[in-house]
Amino acid sequence: MKEINLFITGVGNVGSELLNQIKTQEKFLKKNLNLNLKVIALSNTKKMLFDINGIKLDGWKSKLCEGLENKRDEFKYKTIRLGLQNSVFVDNTASKIIASEYSSYIKKSISVVTCNKIACSDKYKVYEKLKRISIKNKTPFLYETNVGAGLPVINTLKNLIDSGDKINSVQAVLSGSLNYIFNNFSKLNTFHKIVEKAKNLGFTEPDPKIDLSGTDVARKLLILSREIGYKNEIQDIKIKSFLPDECLVSNSYEELYSLLRKSKNYFNMLLENAKKSDKKLKHVAEFQDGKGSVCLKEIDKNHQFYDLDEKDNIILFYTERYGKQPLVIKGAGAGSSVTASGVFSDILKI
Amino acid sequence: MKEINLFITGVGNVGSELLNQIKTQEKFLKKNLNLNLKVIALSNTKKMLFDINGIKLDGWKSKLCEGLENKRDEFKYKTIRLGLQNSVFVDNTASKIIASEYSSYIKKSISVVTCNKIACSDKYKVYEKLKRISIKNKTPFLYETNVGAGLPVINTLKNLIDSGDKINSVQAVLSGSLNYIFNNFSKLNTFHKIVEKAKNLGFTEPDPKIDLSGTDVARKLLILSREIGYKNEIQDIKIKSFLPDECLVSNSYEELYSLLRKSKNYFNMLLENAKKSDKKLKHVAEFQDGKGSVCLKEIDKNHQFYDLDEKDNIILFYTERYGKQPLVIKGAGAGSSVTASGVFSDILKI
Repeated sequence: MKEINLFITGVGNVGSELLNQIKTQEKFLKKNLNLNLKVIALSNTKKMLFDINGIKLDGWKSKLCEGLENKRDEFKYKTIRLGLQNSVFVDNTASKIIASEYSSYIKKSISVVTCNKIACSDKYKVYEKLKRISIKNKTPFLYETNVGAGLPVINTLKNLIDSGDKINSVQAVLSGSLNYIFNNFSKLNTFHKIVEKAKNLGFTEPDPKIDLSGTDVARKLLILSREIGYKNEIQDIKIKSFLPDECLVSNSYEELYSLLRKSKNYFNMLLENAKKSDKKLKHVAEFQDGKGSVCLKEIDKNHQFYDLDEKDNIILFYTERYGKQPLVIKGAGAGSSVTASGVFSDILKI
Repeated sequence: MKEINLFITGVGNVGSELLNQIKTQEKFLKKNLNLNLKVIALSNTKKMLFDINGIKLDGWKSKLCEGLENKRDEFKYKTIRLGLQNSVFVDNTASKIIASEYSSYIKKSISVVTCNKIACSDKYKVYEKLKRISIKNKTPFLYETNVGAGLPVINTLKNLIDSGDKINSVQAVLSGSLNYIFNNFSKLNTFHKIVEKAKNLGFTEPDPKIDLSGTDVARKLLILSREIGYKNEIQDIKIKSFLPDECLVSNSYEELYSLLRKSKNYFNMLLENAKKSDKKLKHVAEFQDGKGSVCLKEIDKNHQFYDLDEKDNIILFYTERYGKQPLVIKGAGAGSSVTASGVFSDILKI
């Protein structure tokens, strides 16, 4: 039986759900895939826990609480020293420090699976180096959940590119949280209230400005453009913000919320203008001829984006082979269960 | 550099296009994936050609013409005797005989990649055995193109299942040829004429009755149901045929064509009835609670299937995690370039 050894950092929403899914699937994987997933290590910001025999997933929370103090270097060196075959470092955080550790793992033949977008949307040379050492060391570096959570976006794009298709353009709605916000925003449910609700439901980044400013979508589009083959930097993705300028320079969520409330009439006007011509507001990412753009658009009834419900994402790939009609992928693009399931699928590719 | 050694049977529409794509991508794969694809053997119904150093893909047609007589057993034994690492048998045919050879290859650690649906829609025990020996021998058996050509359908479903999602239901249009036929059929462009056109364009199976009868779609839905985990046989997929009975028992394409022509008024009536209530005719496959069905439906303007253009396929997965809104995959589901690209992607997974 094949064994995959997991070293998991980050046990918040996504990490907890991942552990839950691994526990539930244990028997299935052994029986159907002849595969044993062993969680060798867990860590959060405070604690870390190692068990070479595999951490029992009943009651991992209390065991982790009683664990050692988490010193990142110790976690890393311990993982590397163990030198287990089929080792995978799993990053469920949004941490810049953790993202900076990937290369140390890959160089030691430890695969990296992550939903953290920071490494892939960092400077091009950081992204390129990780891809290069991954191929050189025959050690997977997988990040399907960077775009569209559990939707098969990056892998589908990779398959198109590797088999020689040419991408003519990409049109997408890549923010589950913004889609939720614009779908539920009305004159009664004012914009600031819906933002607050989306934040409380865990649909936005901890700092909702990352979503509202378009930064999060720009990062995703940057990653797609790099997968297509462009050596783009974040400045190559043009963000046309729909937020009033003063909201963009706010320094805390409280300040942002108060500014959004003050701009109530402006947001209502955006909505009214769209409604007048029977259109809907959608936050759209587009990529063509090496150039990306991110902005709020009024979408016509006949467009595929019009009926995009809930927290859904949609991606249209117009390619040489999918010429007249694009290849389309659509579905929930945010939420811990679909994100964890995408991380899980990446682990199973090792 | 990793080498993958290919033994390719079937060099018709899909096979030729695959060789073309491999040739075009040679440099890219070496540079970007550190991968060398070597075509060691080619065969069609008449001839076979082996070159342990790799067949040069310029002028493979004439080289194959001058090759040895193709005796299937010799092709198989020669492939097995070479015992090359990372060997892949690629089947681009629709042949039952070739499909019966897969297990011999897999048992000798030669991976199998195929767009041929016969093995996976054969008796359950045939399908199950291939899956079992593939896992036991750690030798991939891949058939993404069995459903939706190059669209990522089977792999997406596998990821959902392996990571523990539960499939509540599947709704799909799985026949690119029937979608083309019903999209282009009008009172002027009579049904039989559009079938003839689709046949001439290579969109249908060589015998269009396989498409028109619903057999091809039933096979695809059977394969999806098995991937979900049901031990179904083809009889478990109920086909409600839209063809008049006499068409189903026709013995040749000429006879079928003449019967379709005679049924002109019947087909026009189907179309008129749908149009009266602003609906469109779509050939729909559905799966729920272990049971599959295939039939022609009148589709409402608000349904995701309504605007399905050209030869497109669409698959909606309603699952536990994609609950309110389904995970949707849409795009061209027929044609040699997208099918070859799906076969190519499977090869790159080895």
